[in-house]
Amino acid sequence: MKYTSLDTPAVLVDMDAAERNIREMLDGAASAGLAHRPHIKTHKCVELAKLQLSAGAAGITCAKLGEAEIMAEAGINNILVAYPLIGDVKLQRYAELHKKSPGLLTIVNSIAGAKALSDTALRSNDKYDVLIEVDGGTSRGGIAPGDASLEFADSIRGLKGLHICGLMYYPGANYSKHDDEGIAAAADRERMDVTGTAKLLASHGFDMSVLSGGNSVSSKVPQHLLGLTEIRAGNYIFNDCQQLYFDRVSEEQCALKILSTVVCKTGPCTAILDAGTKTLSSDVFHGTDLGYGRICGHPEIKITDLNEEHAFIASPEPLPFEVGDKVLIIPNHACVVPNLAGGMYKIRADEVVGTLTVDARGASR
Amino acid sequence: MKYTSLDTPAVLVDMDAAERNIREMLDGAASAGLAHRPHIKTHKCVELAKLQLSAGAAGITCAKLGEAEIMAEAGINNILVAYPLIGDVKLQRYAELHKKSPGLLTIVNSIAGAKALSDTALRSNDKYDVLIEVDGGTSRGGIAPGDASLEFADSIRGLKGLHICGLMYYPGANYSKHDDEGIAAAADRERMDVTGTAKLLASHGFDMSVLSGGNSVSSKVPQHLLGLTEIRAGNYIFNDCQQLYFDRVSEEQCALKILSTVVCKTGPCTAILDAGTKTLSSDVFHGTDLGYGRICGHPEIKITDLNEEHAFIASPEPLPFEVGDKVLIIPNHACVVPNLAGGMYKIRADEVVGTLTVDARGASR
Repeated sequence: MKYTSLDTPAVLVDMDAAERNIREMLDGAASAGLAHRPHIKTHKCVELAKLQLSAGAAGITCAKLGEAEIMAEAGINNILVAYPLIGDVKLQRYAELHKKSPGLLTIVNSIAGAKALSDTALRSNDKYDVLIEVDGGTSRGGIAPGDASLEFADSIRGLKGLHICGLMYYPGANYSKHDDEGIAAAADRERMDVTGTAKLLASHGFDMSVLSGGNSVSSKVPQHLLGLTEIRAGNYIFNDCQQLYFDRVSEEQCALKILSTVVCKTGPCTAILDAGTKTLSSDVFHGTDLGYGRICGHPEIKITDLNEEHAFIASPEPLPFEVGDKVLIIPNHACVVPNLAGGMYKIRADEVVGTLTVDARGASR
Repeated sequence: MKYTSLDTPAVLVDMDAAERNIREMLDGAASAGLAHRPHIKTHKCVELAKLQLSAGAAGITCAKLGEAEIMAEAGINNILVAYPLIGDVKLQRYAELHKKSPGLLTIVNSIAGAKALSDTALRSNDKYDVLIEVDGGTSRGGIAPGDASLEFADSIRGLKGLHICGLMYYPGANYSKHDDEGIAAAADRERMDVTGTAKLLASHGFDMSVLSGGNSVSSKVPQHLLGLTEIRAGNYIFNDCQQLYFDRVSEEQCALKILSTVVCKTGPCTAILDAGTKTLSSDVFHGTDLGYGRICGHPEIKITDLNEEHAFIASPEPLPFEVGDKVLIIPNHACVVPNLAGGMYKIRADEVVGTLTVDARGASR
């Protein structure tokens, strides 16, 4: 079946492109001596996580414990839950998951959180590997690099249920860098912050076996991340307008696309598509007028607005579409689209070759 | 069980508030002689749709055919699919649904779309009731009121598979009106446009039995909508910051809230909550700095930014929260939250009294 026959809106994953993206990320990481622990919050699919693992990934990263439970249930090991675990219910769930998920580890970024996690481990006759979250420039909860991190590590050194085994940071601030030089400088600063902090902590006797960083921006220049042990990039499996708009990837490298139908023309140069915020999300590039995604092959057409089930498009010239025509949209942010869709179609060239279930859909707990 | 014991993030529906909101909407509609056909895209729950119907609603409105299929399967009749049906797969699905769903009707807003729908009806030995979509000021596909609508109606008059039985419009432009006077003026203009167009079409022999309009802004002054036959408001069952920020509802009238945990403090006046765009969506009020939702009881605290699983909050004074504390968030836009969550908790006062399944989650086709 050709994908153009599908009812819309439909989320398509170009498997050839996704496989190339995975291969390139793993090759780049290997060339810099880095392991790759892909962030699966992007796709939330067991099948795609296993594809990344079979291609050479060293484990996976989850944003939330709920995602980790689902991935572990499917037989995936070496999971990093890159989120502070706070609250009795969550700690009990982690205790249960830890009994059956080899290589499971998580992060700590507060004394209260670390203490409660240690207490949970002790109650379970267990010991948990943890990474200290260091601030990667977003003030999202990481401890400041350097002395503050040492002070934090010292303050939780006595917690017998925990084994500190390294550092992790999220370098989200680099999403505002669009040129090679800016990205390299940001990656350098990240690396210096975290490797410098690791040296300081190691000199005070802490195990710094795991230094985990990188996202889909900085991981594309892995030689700037030398000194880390692993990169966690997630978005790269699909890519999206975050990189396309800044000419860092081509449309062909964008593996996730939304097939959408022109449901009405509102003028010669304007029309409505059947994909709105409930398909694409309302993610935008604040402070720009770049709109809500790219229509493949038509950089001149802008998605000017979204309602829940409508996309408003406008072109400086008469639109080459009539009611009933289908277009492909590359979303602003691919990491939120599978979660909205629940299911996706695998395609190769023009053919539908299968479906993907978004196993960890909505697993935000 | 107290809702404060729930793991987070958790979406709560205060059933007392929702029932009051339904009662008030139906009373207001009745006082103006209007039927109410609530838009269920807001909650997507069979149980809540049935609550609205048992309270007196005359049917329901769906944004997409997929929602209508799910509601019909649950035994709900008199469904308006308020979206143009374009494409072979969709038309075939509509034909099948029409055979088993009494009172089903839909809209047309293009000649191509109307012709294909008529052809489908004829192939199915059926005849479909349709409303002509008139533009309510958003240029979202409706035909311009007045002469243009008459011309459109005349051009599809000969389609034997369709029975034109009225007009519908979406008055979304009034979401920018925040004072009584502005809302009344917008509602008046809406009404004039559609009732004037209806008179014109009726004088040319068209059946104008159904005049469907109103949303959760204009439906709160139903006396300004006299002349319509029904209002389709949806959001009002929950309410949200769209009305709260402009003092049109109180926190107590907001029935949908997200329970969220403080997972780390990033300073005396800043912290991170565990609900991000995958729970709240990234919907904002463009051109304002109102942020991403309201923390109940704390109008001084701002949700300054969201990542996928993180909310950044900031207060002008030291925050009264510690790691592990739970807060309630009223979202900017309640109509997108159930779709993200998949399931919700029903509460009355502090008690969890049950759960809600978001039956039509992701039904955007």
